[in-house]
Amino acid sequence: MVRENEIRAGERAVSVPPTNDARLVFIGRIHTPWQSRMETPRQGRQDGPTCRIEVFEPWVTALAGLAQFERIEVLYWLHLSRRDLVLQSPANDGSARGTFSLRSPARPNPIGTSIAQLLSIDGATLLVRGLDCLDGTPLLDIKPDRTLFKPIAPPQAGDFQVGDP
Amino acid sequence: MVRENEIRAGERAVSVPPTNDARLVFIGRIHTPWQSRMETPRQGRQDGPTCRIEVFEPWVTALAGLAQFERIEVLYWLHLSRRDLVLQSPANDGSARGTFSLRSPARPNPIGTSIAQLLSIDGATLLVRGLDCLDGTPLLDIKPDRTLFKPIAPPQAGDFQVGDP
Repeated sequence: MVRENEIRAGERAVSVPPTNDARLVFIGRIHTPWQSRMETPRQGRQDGPTCRIEVFEPWVTALAGLAQFERIEVLYWLHLSRRDLVLQSPANDGSARGTFSLRSPARPNPIGTSIAQLLSIDGATLLVRGLDCLDGTPLLDIKPDRTLFKPIAPPQAGDFQVGDP
Repeated sequence: MVRENEIRAGERAVSVPPTNDARLVFIGRIHTPWQSRMETPRQGRQDGPTCRIEVFEPWVTALAGLAQFERIEVLYWLHLSRRDLVLQSPANDGSARGTFSLRSPARPNPIGTSIAQLLSIDGATLLVRGLDCLDGTPLLDIKPDRTLFKPIAPPQAGDFQVGDP
């Protein structure tokens, strides 16, 4: 069962340093069928239910040109997750693994990333499939799927750098 | 040429709302061969130069179990990027596209995501290929590549949800 806020056998929490290094602005909200962490998918599926992404002003103009991409990368803030676990026991069986070897929502900076199928854009509203987050999750960013995007900017020296000197 | 901080013909900047919705902690630093935004690759390449990721305490324990993954997802803070552009002209030719239809570093929440080849982990130091960021870029998160990761937690109802009711 997915974690609420307990610390389980084998897990380790640390004292989190001040989280003052950078600040985020919520640019929208994600609407999904899941009201509890006990029912969210562990990972989104491309044939999953339709979810709705609502983009706030003044960012709606920034959607221009997005509709050409079949898939998008969505970044969101996992607002209910604890940030202090370095070892976690996803199966709650006494064995634990490092947080960075998991895609658990509990992490020092609880940012979720998903690849979603883009179904439609209508004004400030996107319909997508493939998300796995709670209803009401704050939106941080939308980007074209990296495998579909070709840079428009002129080439730079680093583009051609292969291997080590 | 990649942007420094100019606003180009066709671009549009907005007044950014207060960025107080959530706060980040820098969990490490990324060392790359690129000292200037004029030379970074536009996108990382899997045969690119070796880059070094340094993880800070108290997060080093969270690397346990990561070495089994050939590829990792790396999240970082694009600390020099402006956050106020909704329309951008990557080719600087007067034509502009929405920020969310680009993978430009200039975005409301300037979080970069890359898929990197994991070469080695030694203590707090990871060697990887495939990054495209400046030397000194702050690290936000490391996750297993989504295509290599199988959830360990027991199944949840949402895992089996397909299509719409």
